[in-house]
Amino acid sequence: MVQLGANRYGKAEVRVVQVTRAAAPGGKDAIRDWNVSTSLSGDLAATHLTGDNSSVLATDTQKNTVYAFAKKLGGIEPEAFGLELARHFVDTQSAISRARIAIEEYPWTPISGTGHSFARAGQYTRTVVVTEDSELGRSVIGGIEDLIVLNTTGSEFSGFPRDEYTTLPDAKDRMLATTVSARWRLRAADADWAAVFEAAKAALLAAFAQTYSYSLQQALYAIGSDIVTTVPDICEVRLALPNRHHFLVDLAPFGLANANEVYYAADRPYGLIEGTVLADDAPDAGIAWW
Amino acid sequence: MVQLGANRYGKAEVRVVQVTRAAAPGGKDAIRDWNVSTSLSGDLAATHLTGDNSSVLATDTQKNTVYAFAKKLGGIEPEAFGLELARHFVDTQSAISRARIAIEEYPWTPISGTGHSFARAGQYTRTVVVTEDSELGRSVIGGIEDLIVLNTTGSEFSGFPRDEYTTLPDAKDRMLATTVSARWRLRAADADWAAVFEAAKAALLAAFAQTYSYSLQQALYAIGSDIVTTVPDICEVRLALPNRHHFLVDLAPFGLANANEVYYAADRPYGLIEGTVLADDAPDAGIAWW
Amino acid sequence: MVQLGANRYGKAEVRVVQVTRAAAPGGKDAIRDWNVSTSLSGDLAATHLTGDNSSVLATDTQKNTVYAFAKKLGGIEPEAFGLELARHFVDTQSAISRARIAIEEYPWTPISGTGHSFARAGQYTRTVVVTEDSELGRSVIGGIEDLIVLNTTGSEFSGFPRDEYTTLPDAKDRMLATTVSARWRLRAADADWAAVFEAAKAALLAAFAQTYSYSLQQALYAIGSDIVTTVPDICEVRLALPNRHHFLVDLAPFGLANANEVYYAADRPYGLIEGTVLADDAPDAGIAWW
Amino acid sequence: MVQLGANRYGKAEVRVVQVTRAAAPGGKDAIRDWNVSTSLSGDLAATHLTGDNSSVLATDTQKNTVYAFAKKLGGIEPEAFGLELARHFVDTQSAISRARIAIEEYPWTPISGTGHSFARAGQYTRTVVVTEDSELGRSVIGGIEDLIVLNTTGSEFSGFPRDEYTTLPDAKDRMLATTVSARWRLRAADADWAAVFEAAKAALLAAFAQTYSYSLQQALYAIGSDIVTTVPDICEVRLALPNRHHFLVDLAPFGLANANEVYYAADRPYGLIEGTVLADDAPDAGIAWW
Repeated sequence: MVQLGANRYGKAEVRVVQVTRAAAPGGKDAIRDWNVSTSLSGDLAATHLTGDNSSVLATDTQKNTVYAFAKKLGGIEPEAFGLELARHFVDTQSAISRARIAIEEYPWTPISGTGHSFARAGQYTRTVVVTEDSELGRSVIGGIEDLIVLNTTGSEFSGFPRDEYTTLPDAKDRMLATTVSARWRLRAADADWAAVFEAAKAALLAAFAQTYSYSLQQALYAIGSDIVTTVPDICEVRLALPNRHHFLVDLAPFGLANANEVYYAADRPYGLIEGTVLADDAPDAGIAWW
Repeated sequence: MVQLGANRYGKAEVRVVQVTRAAAPGGKDAIRDWNVSTSLSGDLAATHLTGDNSSVLATDTQKNTVYAFAKKLGGIEPEAFGLELARHFVDTQSAISRARIAIEEYPWTPISGTGHSFARAGQYTRTVVVTEDSELGRSVIGGIEDLIVLNTTGSEFSGFPRDEYTTLPDAKDRMLATTVSARWRLRAADADWAAVFEAAKAALLAAFAQTYSYSLQQALYAIGSDIVTTVPDICEVRLALPNRHHFLVDLAPFGLANANEVYYAADRPYGLIEGTVLADDAPDAGIAWW
Repeated sequence: MVQLGANRYGKAEVRVVQVTRAAAPGGKDAIRDWNVSTSLSGDLAATHLTGDNSSVLATDTQKNTVYAFAKKLGGIEPEAFGLELARHFVDTQSAISRARIAIEEYPWTPISGTGHSFARAGQYTRTVVVTEDSELGRSVIGGIEDLIVLNTTGSEFSGFPRDEYTTLPDAKDRMLATTVSARWRLRAADADWAAVFEAAKAALLAAFAQTYSYSLQQALYAIGSDIVTTVPDICEVRLALPNRHHFLVDLAPFGLANANEVYYAADRPYGLIEGTVLADDAPDAGIAWW
Repeated sequence: MVQLGANRYGKAEVRVVQVTRAAAPGGKDAIRDWNVSTSLSGDLAATHLTGDNSSVLATDTQKNTVYAFAKKLGGIEPEAFGLELARHFVDTQSAISRARIAIEEYPWTPISGTGHSFARAGQYTRTVVVTEDSELGRSVIGGIEDLIVLNTTGSEFSGFPRDEYTTLPDAKDRMLATTVSARWRLRAADADWAAVFEAAKAALLAAFAQTYSYSLQQALYAIGSDIVTTVPDICEVRLALPNRHHFLVDLAPFGLANANEVYYAADRPYGLIEGTVLADDAPDAGIAWW
């Protein structure tokens, strides 16, 4: 009467910090600060139906594997780490046909000449999702989260339809702010990962800053389009852009003008614009967004 | 060279509190406390490509509509509210072919005989997602979030494979705790919504409490299966169950035994078990999970 | 040229869950779910000035002590637990003259007849702060956090001064909601702790519900006054009440009346009312609020 | 039988963003992004006892005043803003004898040559608390929050006392990380505010990086001492330093060495070190920490 559908399991939010020690006294240490989540799927009906765990690699083991691989692989790029880890699970566990590794990387910046002191940079989180399927192959998604950007001008919103519930006036010069959540799909599971990330981030920031915006949708398309166009390794970008509304405060009751100077930063509700931009020749996404 | 892919936009997290006033002095008020998010999609290429907003119903208007409908519809069930609101957007906006309304409901309980005083109940959040597509019809998903449950016994985890990274011993009597995130798909866009929610919640709690668990996957399947079996209006359940690990503290260094008495409640990492249970005759999901 | 001033250190947020197992099969388990923070102070200049740790009981040891005491003391009230733990640190560490133990307790409710299944209650957090000083004695503070309450009517705010920046109209019937943060000082370090907590909570809820309020300050005073008056063990109450504004939505642009039916629940900014109510014969607070 | 004790009230978390527009085309805009909280106290017994609000400047009015002053004062330093605002409330409201203004400032960095595009910097929050009392005068506290720093080496913790609950081994080379919460008291209500903040931050970071640490207490004292010593305008520093534990992962079960390379970043519990460092000639704090 009932059946088991899609399922997966794993260890979420394994916090691993890896240090590559300076080769010589006076040199500089390097750190990788990651939040790693693993998900496995395959022939797992038994544990669901009868509690037979003979195919269930413990999530505790998955956690241990993350730490062991952090040691074995050293301070590599998170995409490369995810690919190795996903392959390991699929190759070594006969019941597991698919593995998904999601990594958040928190950047740090040196704070002095000591070579061993750092401050968390805080401006954004770099993200990676790697999926390997024993039949369908591998995919890599990069991305960025928590990047808050703002234009003080160069943004309008007008010409929208007016129905019986519409009270918003046209805005010919508004502040535009958003917290960027972007994920980009790579054409192949092989690239200069650091360079791709930096190029995508640069394209994103430049597109946001330089696009005169008639709608946040237009800014979204410009960002996605510029990333796909300027980073050949990327074939698709998915964006979720909350409109962090900054409303001009009405100071007229106090006898004051407000020439786009003083704003109220609202929390909720917020507009939420979601969209995808693809290269015309983007290969099928397959399991990438699983 | 690039193209626009799937997209949608709307107003997220419109916080509306609706009061149905007591009919007579001395009677009892009733409140609905909702967090409503709207998403619309359709023929929206123009705003993305050129900034032409002539088809973009402002998210501010969507917010206003939520409030106006809260007045017009009164204190109805959130599923019924979502259906009316989705239909409104699809019916009145020619460019909009699909609307998705997501609602979180926060329950309150009376705190006295005054009839107008309440305390937030706090035990869980009720969720609703309604989708209407002008061609593909309507769907309703109910659910529950933030429901934390715990069994002090009646749970094992053993018999799992042991590889070179496995250190976890078999557990023959462990504490099992999870924060339930469940979403259930309704067979039709018409039901006794309050009764369905209560029945699904009751089945969920009973299954968690009464299933002797050899794995959290087994508990997941039992929960999903019992909901589908006991609530005929529901044809599919999707669950995400974080394993909120409670580790037995090793008190041996202090000369103390720990006969399953003192536990450490861990934050991260946590196991994460995700799975779907369907009725054998579940209709195709269509746009439900969009 | 510089000197060390007041200081303390400890282990924060030790998450301990303690189970008192049913005495017989078919009986009911009981659980205590605590977040314990310890702070010690005394003759600690050496570690600050020279890194000499010979007087610094490790915070890891403090954590271990929490767990060991949870075993030794069993499922007692958190006030009693804090008193034992504070005494232990002051009595056994010659350099430590003062200990402060803060405990958050998360209530759970049984979810079935199994005797071992629970759901987190979610309505509030119970708090305790115990301080013991080798010279100044002991104090106990109880409290409640995260308790959200709301009156749909019975609240006004009017008659306030109007200056050049005042735009708020008088409100003769408003919704009043707050998240109660209350801490009450006990007259002595000995009481029926569970009864005191229940009595204080009951007085708080009754005062909130039954006070016709002309200002949130008035509600604050009524709450504090009723707790002190009805619970003789309590001599002082400190309250922080954020005014969780619920603004009536203006539906007139849509041709709709809003007879106190539809509200917008705002996040920020919020009014914040803080105040203390004391018994006339309250003893000096001494170290209680340290 | 009961009496009203200390009390205050105000508007919390007024989010104001102020833009100073570039003087000429092609110039650069500047922004101030603040979260402002006001608290007033004085002769406020009436509203508590009888609901007479004739002395209660509405918190809504306080919010309006924040916005009006943001316009009038332009993009000044937050300390200067707080001083003006506090004075206004004390000077204009006869019942109000004391005002406290707390400001969080979120820094932004330009992201391009447009002159109007910014990204939130994210590394820390700058804080200000200004208090003015009609009799006791004025005080200014500056500070920093959310600044996460880490030393990969140069930190020990050993030589601590060992009691029956101690299991922690000596650590001769550990990772040390903390989220700095610092507040510094100014000698006077007049200074080069931006320069003081930058100097204090620089001293803080340098002290953290360059102090070989035998305990986090020692690092705390070094930070406080260096700030007081190098910034003559500052007479007192209060620090709260959570020890964000990074534990070395035991890789021996996997046949791997871990030469201080792979760490587990723990969430809870955490050590919490709190302390004050003062100049020997620091004036009395008075109302500063109210």
